Amino acid sequence: MAVRALWWDRGALALLDQRALPRRAVVLRLRRLEAVADAIRTMAVRGAPAIGVAAAYGMALGAREGLAPDVAAARLGSTRPTAVDLFVGIDAVRQAWEAGDDPLEAAHGYRARVVEECHRIGEAGAPLLRRAHGVLTHCNAGALATVEWGTALAPIRVARQRGADLFVFVDETRPLLQGARLTAWELARERIPHAVIADNAAGHYLARGEVDAVIVGADRIARNGDFANKIGTYEKAVVARENGVPFYVAAPWTTFDHRRPTGRSIPVEERAPEEVLELAGRAVAPKASPARNPAFDVTPAKFVSAFVTPDGVVRPGELAARLAVRSRRRPAAR
Amino acid sequence: MAVRALWWDRGALALLDQRALPRRAVVLRLRRLEAVADAIRTMAVRGAPAIGVAAAYGMALGAREGLAPDVAAARLGSTRPTAVDLFVGIDAVRQAWEAGDDPLEAAHGYRARVVEECHRIGEAGAPLLRRAHGVLTHCNAGALATVEWGTALAPIRVARQRGADLFVFVDETRPLLQGARLTAWELARERIPHAVIADNAAGHYLARGEVDAVIVGADRIARNGDFANKIGTYEKAVVARENGVPFYVAAPWTTFDHRRPTGRSIPVEERAPEEVLELAGRAVAPKASPARNPAFDVTPAKFVSAFVTPDGVVRPGELAARLAVRSRRRPAAR
Repeated sequence: MAVRALWWDRGALALLDQRALPRRAVVLRLRRLEAVADAIRTMAVRGAPAIGVAAAYGMALGAREGLAPDVAAARLGSTRPTAVDLFVGIDAVRQAWEAGDDPLEAAHGYRARVVEECHRIGEAGAPLLRRAHGVLTHCNAGALATVEWGTALAPIRVARQRGADLFVFVDETRPLLQGARLTAWELARERIPHAVIADNAAGHYLARGEVDAVIVGADRIARNGDFANKIGTYEKAVVARENGVPFYVAAPWTTFDHRRPTGRSIPVEERAPEEVLELAGRAVAPKASPARNPAFDVTPAKFVSAFVTPDGVVRPGELAARLAVRSRRRPAAR
Repeated sequence: MAVRALWWDRGALALLDQRALPRRAVVLRLRRLEAVADAIRTMAVRGAPAIGVAAAYGMALGAREGLAPDVAAARLGSTRPTAVDLFVGIDAVRQAWEAGDDPLEAAHGYRARVVEECHRIGEAGAPLLRRAHGVLTHCNAGALATVEWGTALAPIRVARQRGADLFVFVDETRPLLQGARLTAWELARERIPHAVIADNAAGHYLARGEVDAVIVGADRIARNGDFANKIGTYEKAVVARENGVPFYVAAPWTTFDHRRPTGRSIPVEERAPEEVLELAGRAVAPKASPARNPAFDVTPAKFVSAFVTPDGVVRPGELAARLAVRSRRRPAAR
């Protein structure tokens, strides 16, 4: 892969500091659980699948430091509340640890599973883009968000490898600009044709018929198909449906929260107002003006054309049954 | 008024340089038509009604310089294509000039008419907000956009004066951040409770029931009620309707283009990609990534609950008849 978000390197979790991109590719080498928790909280690593893998390695580092599993899990779990993958990654290592297995091996296994699922998402989703030209994506659901391949970007990558003539509209994704900084960086590295647009311009291109499909990732998907994702996703979903454009949500199984019946109770992280009021450290609004800064929104299932999973395309109405089968078959996975 | 965008001062057009706000209140003093054209093109002055007034004074300056009316009108008309007020302001002075009247007096008259219409918009729109608490607005349709009072902000100002308990959600309005920079500045000066939000967060608050009304300005309104406004307006309108929240468009009569049957043919200005790719002069996207930057979008009439005009609230279905009556009564004003 041209891009990967994190890897294990001689006793440390190595990760690309996503706050420095696209200007500089800085690799952080983290040797303690606390450093991993900070990296997640400050978004040096972000994207639901990637923070799940980072947290898995954080657990392994915690075990090496002699922490108790409970303490390690609580510290990592307190960093960001919305992405369910965080808790799945923590639990995967915790179960191995408590069973006397090697936590580091469990983290390696969790990482491998996420990468392999993302590759299968690419295979499953590519046919949906066969007749597409313009594709809109929001935030970064690429290799940087998922270790390798990506979720939303995986079908785009596979479709391109198979010769599809795609053009990607990249929402810049305020306030933290993950689209302009990260998705554009991934696409530019792989020479996939694209343009960055202000988030406000997505509706204009949807209404003009220049977008044939919208594909995004997710931070948590409830059993009924409601899902949380980066703030702004809900608007794109509503406007896509208004214009008859299919809206796809790509995610590994770790992002599906089969214990959550609907999206109503998904916790939405509220981040610091400075993320909105400042840009590159410089104030853009008057000093007397406050801001509100929800990091995620919840999109109802009715706006989702299909979920792109490692095991194929699943319509929202089929989701609960699929998750029930999976949770009976693999109870240890959560 | 606490805020005004431009005024005539001892032989010059004085205007608040909106590019420097909210950090500094810089007043430009323009003595030549070419300087006015530059101020409009570079958005030192912006907002459809305000650029109409600036262009009216630009015509008066052109007359003083000894230019021909045609030449003056063509130069000013080439600055920004979307706002119809620009052409209305130019024509108002041109007609007086060609009839042998004083162009400067005509510009003063045009300015007075716009200010008075905005005040009446405030009176007409305030009752719509009587039962509202949360109000969402996009871009800046305040005093800065209209000389005084504003269009979208006029009903908010009048409702507040009458004791309404309003809280304004201010879309920051990428790429040029007119919401965060200008609307927040106006509201902060008048101590109207508000919060700046990323454009992406508007849908979240609409879906949660925290927004009771949306009110925006317009750059050009077609006879059937389709209208052009700052990029992103269309998304807010679609999401408002999805959530049963009324969506109001406030504008003086100069913004209504009775000769344009629908919004389809309204020219949409495409601005420089750097406005998206850079923030405060600093690159936010990779060097290899292009951008697309439409400055406006067109919202179909079906998403408009009502137009707030100087002569009261007009439903989209009533608009064509009202405009026909006006154009018969005041052919000179279009």
